Amino acid sequence: MITFEKQAQSGSARAGCIRTPRGTIHTPIFMPVGTLGTVKAMTPEEVQALGAEIILGNTYHLHLRPGDALIHQLGGLHQFMNWHLPILTDSGGFQIFSLAKLTKKTEEGVVFQSHINGDSFMLSPEKSIQVQQNLGPDIMMCFDECPKLPATHQRMEKSVALTTRWAKRSKDARTSEQALFGIIQGGLYFDLRKRSLEELVNIGFDGYAIGGLSVGESPQDMYELLEQFAHQLPDTHPRYLMGVGEPEDLLEAIDSGIDMFDCVLPTRNARNGSLFTSHGKVSIKQAKYRKDSQPLDPDCHCHVCQNYSRAYLRHLFISKEILSMRLNTYHNLHFYLQLVKQARQAIDGGNYAHFKKTFFEKYFIND
Amino acid sequence: MITFEKQAQSGSARAGCIRTPRGTIHTPIFMPVGTLGTVKAMTPEEVQALGAEIILGNTYHLHLRPGDALIHQLGGLHQFMNWHLPILTDSGGFQIFSLAKLTKKTEEGVVFQSHINGDSFMLSPEKSIQVQQNLGPDIMMCFDECPKLPATHQRMEKSVALTTRWAKRSKDARTSEQALFGIIQGGLYFDLRKRSLEELVNIGFDGYAIGGLSVGESPQDMYELLEQFAHQLPDTHPRYLMGVGEPEDLLEAIDSGIDMFDCVLPTRNARNGSLFTSHGKVSIKQAKYRKDSQPLDPDCHCHVCQNYSRAYLRHLFISKEILSMRLNTYHNLHFYLQLVKQARQAIDGGNYAHFKKTFFEKYFIND
Repeated sequence: MITFEKQAQSGSARAGCIRTPRGTIHTPIFMPVGTLGTVKAMTPEEVQALGAEIILGNTYHLHLRPGDALIHQLGGLHQFMNWHLPILTDSGGFQIFSLAKLTKKTEEGVVFQSHINGDSFMLSPEKSIQVQQNLGPDIMMCFDECPKLPATHQRMEKSVALTTRWAKRSKDARTSEQALFGIIQGGLYFDLRKRSLEELVNIGFDGYAIGGLSVGESPQDMYELLEQFAHQLPDTHPRYLMGVGEPEDLLEAIDSGIDMFDCVLPTRNARNGSLFTSHGKVSIKQAKYRKDSQPLDPDCHCHVCQNYSRAYLRHLFISKEILSMRLNTYHNLHFYLQLVKQARQAIDGGNYAHFKKTFFEKYFIND
Repeated sequence: MITFEKQAQSGSARAGCIRTPRGTIHTPIFMPVGTLGTVKAMTPEEVQALGAEIILGNTYHLHLRPGDALIHQLGGLHQFMNWHLPILTDSGGFQIFSLAKLTKKTEEGVVFQSHINGDSFMLSPEKSIQVQQNLGPDIMMCFDECPKLPATHQRMEKSVALTTRWAKRSKDARTSEQALFGIIQGGLYFDLRKRSLEELVNIGFDGYAIGGLSVGESPQDMYELLEQFAHQLPDTHPRYLMGVGEPEDLLEAIDSGIDMFDCVLPTRNARNGSLFTSHGKVSIKQAKYRKDSQPLDPDCHCHVCQNYSRAYLRHLFISKEILSMRLNTYHNLHFYLQLVKQARQAIDGGNYAHFKKTFFEKYFIND
């Protein structure tokens, strides 16, 4: 099981520690996404050296390939992928709605078709927990329903009620010592978010996540909901904003009291040549970098910026070299992990608002 | 410039040192291929940590992309790709005949079309040396003509004569301190190989390479030529067999007195899931490895074999994960670099024939 300790606060922003049997997670934290048992393009050693204290695995993907029973047989996900710090797995709820061809949703669960071979199978609260227990992460997530935005109040009210019933079944299905987080739904409806939270707190979880954001609404709508709502989550437990987001999203959410993040942006963008720097985003394929001997981000201390030029990074990207995806991913993960580390230091120093303002002034310099 | 010192001999097999301003190369040596300014899927630090003391760059490829003038402007290939040990570049001769759509070969050189965009341009001895001097390797290669096998004696005789004239022009074109190797042609005709060698030695080079093998002939034909011919190359200079080959090819060629090798096999095969082990080649995608918790090669001490199972390597390959290409390449390069290192130790110990026999008994165990 895990414990959470709040160590500092600056406005609503919090710094804390999540202690787990596999190591301590210093919050606010960003969790690199390791969809299929690998943070794409990286070794576990590199991810750890960059300062990641926890990574995310995807229940849906690992259930389909190579299969959670196989991973269990081979000693669990940590052993399988050679990552020995904490892992959080999602429940598969999000992928059902984003990836799979949904065939039937009932009270029991969801029957859907695999995005790989079209085979149909069911995910339910019980099945999701069973799969997650096979994978053996340190933190599991409840099986939830995540509707697309915009959605009517009536549609969302039903979704919240179903998510609560599934959360209760998820908790009842757990037979292990692994931590379990509840997922708050309710879209942009403040009253439904509040109801969802209350119902989940009544069941009781080891942490609380805000799901169903960054699914079509504007950043401003998301920031407004977070500002009004995030600080209402239990002060005694970790608060996790799922699937978010851009650097500015992280800083705004931290300002509202969020502790944990995951997102494919730094890794996926890296593979597409979109790089995060302290002076904003850089598209490395641009012709203006062809002869540029400068490091990608002159203010960055990462291995890539210390050893390679923009011209070389551009050449690798244009030539579709594997090293391009490696170096780009390395740099982007360094950027995200440094960002939350600096946020933590600012909270610790009681000057988070100033840190956020200073970061934005530089990051949006070209806007 | 470079110097060569022979340090031990076992039969015709030699162990030696090539000393260059950028570091010492212990022979026999395998040179990983870094076609486009990167050994595919690897960082320079990893390549060096695996024991590579020299890598190969491709003049043809780098001339087309990103351009040798650009690389020169950015400080040369070492600086550009962050590899600070020796580099050898080929002359582009081989790629002209293997890759490009040949449009016209004259005494002057070859006009051909780029395999990327169809642009036509000329490579000649002077142009090749100019490009190589822009790239700035420690060892350059003469521009040669490499005909496909089989070829008639008459065709090959003309090729040898042209290669000699081009070798003289290559040497005359050099204006730098970089070392320059001559390339012996002549196919499988022993008399032509001998003539080519004599003509090149008369011109005088810093090392001598055997080109035009592994281009369609049988391994037995190649071994026979090497056995009869390789020991006739100057004992005082490095001997380089270009573009070869399988592990057994390396061991046979070393037995005939060859010191240097390059080949895309370990890196290219890795990306296709074909892995070299002490017990022979393994195709990691095979279903029999699905649940296999064993390391790829239980006798291998590389990082991959120490940390990952065959089941995980298979999962990464099937899922087309970038880490698959990384770990496979890492292992295969480790295998090749260990192979030549062990060969060197055996030569040093005066028991090379025994080493070769023992290796083959294990490597071909399943044949």
